[in-house]
Amino acid sequence: MEQKTQEEDQIVTPWEVAAEKGGKIDYDKLIDKFGCQRLDQSLIDRVARLTGRPPHVFLRRGVFFAHRDFSDVLDAYERGEKFYLYTGRGPSSEALHLGHLVPFMFTKYLQDAFKVPLVIQLTDDEKCMWKNLTVEESQRLARENAKDIIACGFDVSRTFIFSDFDYVGGSFYKNMVRIAKCVTYNKAAPSFPSSFPHLFSGKDSLRCLIPCAIDQDPYFRMTRDVAPRLGYHKPALIESSFFPALQGETGKMSASDPNSAIYVTDSAKDIKNKVNRYAFSGGQDSIENHRKYGANLEVDIPVKYLGFFLDDDAELEHIRTEYGAGRMLTGEVKKRLIEVLTELVERHRRARAAVTDESYACMMGSRHAPL
Amino acid sequence: MEQKTQEEDQIVTPWEVAAEKGGKIDYDKLIDKFGCQRLDQSLIDRVARLTGRPPHVFLRRGVFFAHRDFSDVLDAYERGEKFYLYTGRGPSSEALHLGHLVPFMFTKYLQDAFKVPLVIQLTDDEKCMWKNLTVEESQRLARENAKDIIACGFDVSRTFIFSDFDYVGGSFYKNMVRIAKCVTYNKAAPSFPSSFPHLFSGKDSLRCLIPCAIDQDPYFRMTRDVAPRLGYHKPALIESSFFPALQGETGKMSASDPNSAIYVTDSAKDIKNKVNRYAFSGGQDSIENHRKYGANLEVDIPVKYLGFFLDDDAELEHIRTEYGAGRMLTGEVKKRLIEVLTELVERHRRARAAVTDESYACMMGSRHAPL
Repeated sequence: MEQKTQEEDQIVTPWEVAAEKGGKIDYDKLIDKFGCQRLDQSLIDRVARLTGRPPHVFLRRGVFFAHRDFSDVLDAYERGEKFYLYTGRGPSSEALHLGHLVPFMFTKYLQDAFKVPLVIQLTDDEKCMWKNLTVEESQRLARENAKDIIACGFDVSRTFIFSDFDYVGGSFYKNMVRIAKCVTYNKAAPSFPSSFPHLFSGKDSLRCLIPCAIDQDPYFRMTRDVAPRLGYHKPALIESSFFPALQGETGKMSASDPNSAIYVTDSAKDIKNKVNRYAFSGGQDSIENHRKYGANLEVDIPVKYLGFFLDDDAELEHIRTEYGAGRMLTGEVKKRLIEVLTELVERHRRARAAVTDESYACMMGSRHAPL
Repeated sequence: MEQKTQEEDQIVTPWEVAAEKGGKIDYDKLIDKFGCQRLDQSLIDRVARLTGRPPHVFLRRGVFFAHRDFSDVLDAYERGEKFYLYTGRGPSSEALHLGHLVPFMFTKYLQDAFKVPLVIQLTDDEKCMWKNLTVEESQRLARENAKDIIACGFDVSRTFIFSDFDYVGGSFYKNMVRIAKCVTYNKAAPSFPSSFPHLFSGKDSLRCLIPCAIDQDPYFRMTRDVAPRLGYHKPALIESSFFPALQGETGKMSASDPNSAIYVTDSAKDIKNKVNRYAFSGGQDSIENHRKYGANLEVDIPVKYLGFFLDDDAELEHIRTEYGAGRMLTGEVKKRLIEVLTELVERHRRARAAVTDESYACMMGSRHAPL
């Protein structure tokens, strides 16, 4: 066990995220501690140049802010080599919240921008094992979550979604055992193309890029340590900060508190109510003081949420300026956020309802065509 | 850790077998300690009656001497219910020795006598993980071992042989996870028919009987503890003593000492040489003393080996009497043993050479017809 210092260091692992006591996550410290790289402006510019499209809002706003070997992936891409994307989700709940959508929205952008294959792992086996779920319930949640994921608009011809219960076996299981031999830790198989012979036959040196939140870094460090011993490329990572809870940015959202997050199943009324009642405001306690001192944007959740989901940079900048100077009130910012979130959730709901059995069967299951 | 007493208790676990210091395995103590049941004469008589054939030599001679729930399996069988057999092998070496053949010879008898399905698991994944073997080498050994196993003469229409690397996945993997949830120990899946949907579809209550050496008892105790929590029958066990090393009966044979065992790849000359040079004799140190005191049958390896492989009870009894009384010499007993073993190994070699691609493909792989 690491010894705690008196000021209670922040804890960020794949299993726990906690800020320093009373503080918020210090991402600079995290980059130093983890030893990953900052995703700087020159790299973002390079992505824009290589893909011929403006960088995604999550790149522009620093949501994805760190990486490992991402520049190597871009070097290879520039030489004409392909790579593939891997992301996933542990299906422990019925409905996704907006924080769950963040990596999938960004992954869809990467797939569209680079025109690359994508594998999405649903770790129903892990959820079954560690949460109090039956095999059947875990599989049902995986199927439900898959529809929400498909609703994010992935390219059917370039996407393979699998649940561990459906897919573990064969080449995938062989890689699990090879990896377990190296690290006694057997969940790194999707990082290596040889786990998917029906997709990547004969392409064992294909590079893998993993978009994920930064708390997954220690986990993939093990995978990366193992890779050379197996003769595989290390998977590259592109790492995001956390989507904050409505109550404020001191960690990840808690699935156990429904008022800490906006769910894709929330109605327009739910969204309005949650934002107005729970979204932590950086505004001052009286209109007089607010006009005088302006809002504290560093802690204001409506502004942070708009940073994720309001695409228009100019409008966002306008809001930040006016709100920060006290000329705009919290109620006005919340009103705009409610519009943005309601539209996002509505669009997602329509897309999910439009998921057909064909598009579902096409992306799920082990009969997928080569990517 | 169990505390060692001064006289160094015997140790029998799936991973280690060691007699008390200088002594041999005390099987009675083992039955008491493990809490399994003695396989008594009335049960042997019942098997003979139910199957309409004489009991196998390994039953007559007490090689299989203990069990768990075997009488329940016989009760069910008498009511007209089926059961299935499960046995297996960890393929860590190229050639099998005679001790390896013991459970397969007995399992073949059970299959023939009860006309029941049999699944044989080759744990190439486990051997890959814990021995210093690659996936490919473990799989190659599994294929080689499978041919030796098939050469034991199993009924093609009632036998399914699988390697974990080939077969783990689907229903089998689901049972592995269900079991791991209960015991953090995931190698019990073959004990439950729902692991084999292509063989036992709709027969989830089929009973399973496992012939094995008694050192596997602690291992299957975990499986049995788990079974009711999963709504499955506990697998029944029928348990053997150990086939002794040539050097004497203080444990199991060591795969690392080629002179401790007769291999199915040994030539007639190898067999003659090993038996004459290494088989521990209970005869006296001079012909005079031997004629006077007779051989000590309790420690004599040639007599013990004949107990396993000489089918003729009358001839065995004759040898025991004459040798024990000093009228027969060690050389004569060894000569007879060499004949018996050479014939056994020759017969095995012919049967192995006769294994066709068809019979191999028919018993291996997941496309096996229902059993």
